[in-house]
Amino acid sequence: MQHTHRVSTTRLEAFSDGVIAVAATLLVLELVVPVPGPHHDGTLVHRLLEDWPDYAAYVISFATVGIVWINHHAMISRLRQTDHTILVLNLLLLMTIGFLPFATKLMATYVRQPHGQATAAFVYAGAFLLMAVAFGALNRHILVAKTHLLTTPLDEPARRQVLLRSLSGIAPYAIAAPLAFVSPYITLGICGAIALYYGSPLASSSS
Amino acid sequence: MQHTHRVSTTRLEAFSDGVIAVAATLLVLELVVPVPGPHHDGTLVHRLLEDWPDYAAYVISFATVGIVWINHHAMISRLRQTDHTILVLNLLLLMTIGFLPFATKLMATYVRQPHGQATAAFVYAGAFLLMAVAFGALNRHILVAKTHLLTTPLDEPARRQVLLRSLSGIAPYAIAAPLAFVSPYITLGICGAIALYYGSPLASSSS
Amino acid sequence: MQHTHRVSTTRLEAFSDGVIAVAATLLVLELVVPVPGPHHDGTLVHRLLEDWPDYAAYVISFATVGIVWINHHAMISRLRQTDHTILVLNLLLLMTIGFLPFATKLMATYVRQPHGQATAAFVYAGAFLLMAVAFGALNRHILVAKTHLLTTPLDEPARRQVLLRSLSGIAPYAIAAPLAFVSPYITLGICGAIALYYGSPLASSSS
Amino acid sequence: MQHTHRVSTTRLEAFSDGVIAVAATLLVLELVVPVPGPHHDGTLVHRLLEDWPDYAAYVISFATVGIVWINHHAMISRLRQTDHTILVLNLLLLMTIGFLPFATKLMATYVRQPHGQATAAFVYAGAFLLMAVAFGALNRHILVAKTHLLTTPLDEPARRQVLLRSLSGIAPYAIAAPLAFVSPYITLGICGAIALYYGSPLASSSS
Repeated sequence: MQHTHRVSTTRLEAFSDGVIAVAATLLVLELVVPVPGPHHDGTLVHRLLEDWPDYAAYVISFATVGIVWINHHAMISRLRQTDHTILVLNLLLLMTIGFLPFATKLMATYVRQPHGQATAAFVYAGAFLLMAVAFGALNRHILVAKTHLLTTPLDEPARRQVLLRSLSGIAPYAIAAPLAFVSPYITLGICGAIALYYGSPLASSSS
Repeated sequence: MQHTHRVSTTRLEAFSDGVIAVAATLLVLELVVPVPGPHHDGTLVHRLLEDWPDYAAYVISFATVGIVWINHHAMISRLRQTDHTILVLNLLLLMTIGFLPFATKLMATYVRQPHGQATAAFVYAGAFLLMAVAFGALNRHILVAKTHLLTTPLDEPARRQVLLRSLSGIAPYAIAAPLAFVSPYITLGICGAIALYYGSPLASSSS
Repeated sequence: MQHTHRVSTTRLEAFSDGVIAVAATLLVLELVVPVPGPHHDGTLVHRLLEDWPDYAAYVISFATVGIVWINHHAMISRLRQTDHTILVLNLLLLMTIGFLPFATKLMATYVRQPHGQATAAFVYAGAFLLMAVAFGALNRHILVAKTHLLTTPLDEPARRQVLLRSLSGIAPYAIAAPLAFVSPYITLGICGAIALYYGSPLASSSS
Repeated sequence: MQHTHRVSTTRLEAFSDGVIAVAATLLVLELVVPVPGPHHDGTLVHRLLEDWPDYAAYVISFATVGIVWINHHAMISRLRQTDHTILVLNLLLLMTIGFLPFATKLMATYVRQPHGQATAAFVYAGAFLLMAVAFGALNRHILVAKTHLLTTPLDEPARRQVLLRSLSGIAPYAIAAPLAFVSPYITLGICGAIALYYGSPLASSSS
C-alpha cells in the first residue's frame, strides 16, 4: 500500500493551535496565590511585589509562545499538504511547547532561592532552545526535503533566507542558557529581549 | 523582503478562541473543595455557603471573559486580513485574559481574610482594567491605523462610535479598582454589574 | 444603530467546542494519585480500588459532558445565525458546563466520608440540573422566540417534540438531586443511568 | 421521527482535536517542581536528574497521544458523515485519552517507590491498552457496520488490512501491562518503543 494518508494542513493547524493555546494558558498556573494567615509577615502588596520574577516569567513565556504561534502559522501556510515526517516533527515541536509551563514554574520557583537558581534558569532557557531547535528542524525539513509539498515554489535564495531567519532564533537561547551560571537574571533578561525583538515592528517581515 | 506574511483572520480567531475558552474553563480551578475531616467545624453545606464569594468571582469572571469573546469576534470580523502589529496587540490582549484565573483566585482567597482584601480586589479589577485597555488599544489600532485592512470601510462617525463604545468599557474598571480600598465587595459588585450590563439586551447592539 | 452584530454559528460552535472539550479534559484533575510512603496502609492496588467512586464520577461526568456536546451541536445546527440573547444564554450554558469539574471533585472527595456525602451528591446532581435547565432555556429561546433565525422552518408539532425532549432531560436530575439525602449512591446511579440512556441506541434519534 | 441528526465530521474532528490537544498539554502538570528549601538534600540538578522517569513518561505519553491524533484523523477522514453510535464510541475513545494524564502521573509518582511500582506501571500500560481497544472498536464499527458512511468504498482486503493494522496496536500494550509485575521499566520501555515505532518512517504508511 504505497498510498500514505496525508493529513490536511487545516487539521494540523487546528491541533497545533489547540496545544499552543492550552500551553500558553496553563502558564498562569505557575502564579501562586500567597497563603493567607497571620503567620506570614508582610502585607499582601509586599508579598505580591516580591514575586515579580513570577510575573516576568509569565509575560516572557506567554509572549514567546505567542510568537512561536505566529511563526508556526507562517511555516505551515507554505505547505499544500503534510506527510508522516512533517506530522512527527510537528509533534516534537508541540512537545517542547507543552513543556514550557513546567520550565517556567521551575524558573519562577527558584530564581530567588539561595540554591538552584542557575540550574532553573538554565532549564528555562534550555526549554526555549529545545523549542527553537525543533522549530528549525521542522522548517528545514519542509524547505529542503519537502519542496514538492510547498504551496508556491521558493527559489534557493528565498529558501536560504527563511531558513537562516528560523535558525537565527536558536543562537540567542544557546547564549542565554549557559549565562544562567553567571546570573539567572541575565538569562531572564535575554529571553525577554528576544520576545521583545520578535514582537517589535523590526521583526514584522519575519516568518 | 518587503512582503510581510499575513496570518488569516481565521487562524487568528481559532487561536484566540482557544486561549479564551481555556482561560474561561481554568477559572473553575479557583473553586477549592473543602478538606474533609473531623478537625473542621461546620457541616459541608455551611462551609460551601461560606465560600459564596468564590462562586460570585467565578460567575463574574466567566461572564466577563465570555463578553470579551463576543466583542473580540465583532472586532476581528471587521478585518479582511491581519498584520504583525495586530497579531502582537492581540497576543497582549490574550495575555491579560490568560492572567484572569490568577486574579480571580487571588480575589476569592483574600476577600474574607482580615488582611489583604483591598489589595486582592484591586488586583482583580486591575486585571479587568488591563484587559479592557488592551482591547481598546487593539480596536483603536484597527480602526485608526489599519483602515485599509477593514472588510467594509467605516466612515468617521461610525468609527468614532465603535471606538467610544470600546473605550467606555475601560472607565468602570478604572473606578472599581481604587474603590477596593473602600470595600472589596463594592469592587466585586461593580465588576458584576458591568458583566450584567453587557450581557443584558441593553448592550445587544454593542460591538 | 439598529444593526446588531451577528456572530456566525461557526465561531459560536468553535468557542463552545473549546469550553466543552477543556471542561471534559479537566475532569481528570479530580483523580488524585495516592501519596506514596510507608505511613499509608494498604497496597497501591487496594488504595486505587477504594477510590472507585472517583472513577465512576469521572466516567459519568465525561459521558454527560460528551452527550451535552452532541445535543449542543444538534441545537446550534438548526440556526442560520445567532444574536445577542443566544450568545448570552449560550455563555450561561457554558458556565454551568465549566463548573462540572468542581462538582465532580466535590462528589468524589466526599462520597466515602462520614459527613457531607449527601450535600456533595446534591451539588453534583444539582450542577447537572443547572446545566439541563440552561440547555432547555437556550433551546426554548431558539425554538420559540427566534424562529426567524432557524435554518429550516419547523412546524408547531416538530418544535414541541424537540422542546419536550430537551426538557425531559431536566426531570431525572431534579429527582436525583434530593435523593442524595437518602443515599449519595442512588444519586450517582441515576446520573450514570441518564448518561447510559442517552449514549444508548435508544436515544439515537435524540436531539 | 426517523430522521437522526447527523453531526458533521468537521465538528467531530474539532471536538476530538480539542480533547486530544488538552489531554496532551495537561500531561505537563505531572512534572512536579521540587520543593525548595534547606531540608532537602542534593542540589537541584541532582534532584531533577533523579526525576528522569517523569520526563520519560511525559515524552512517551505525549508522543502516544500525538500518534493517536494522527491515526484518529486518518480514521475520521474516511467518513462522509457520522451517526449516534460513531459519536458515542468516539466519546469512549476520548474518555480513555482524557484519562492518560492521571495514568502518567501515577506511573511517574510510583516508578521509583519501594512499593506500588508494578501496579502503577500496570495501570499505565493498561490505560494505553484501553485506548487502543476503544480506537480499534470505533475503527471496526466504521469499517464493518457503517460502510455506507464511507467517503470512498473500501474493498474487503483493504478494509481487512486497515483493521488488522489498527488491532495490531493493541497487542504490544497487552504484553506490556502484565510485564509490569516483572519490572516497571520493561513496561515503560515497551510503551516507548511502540511510540518510537509509530513515529518512525516505518509506520509512515500507517492509518
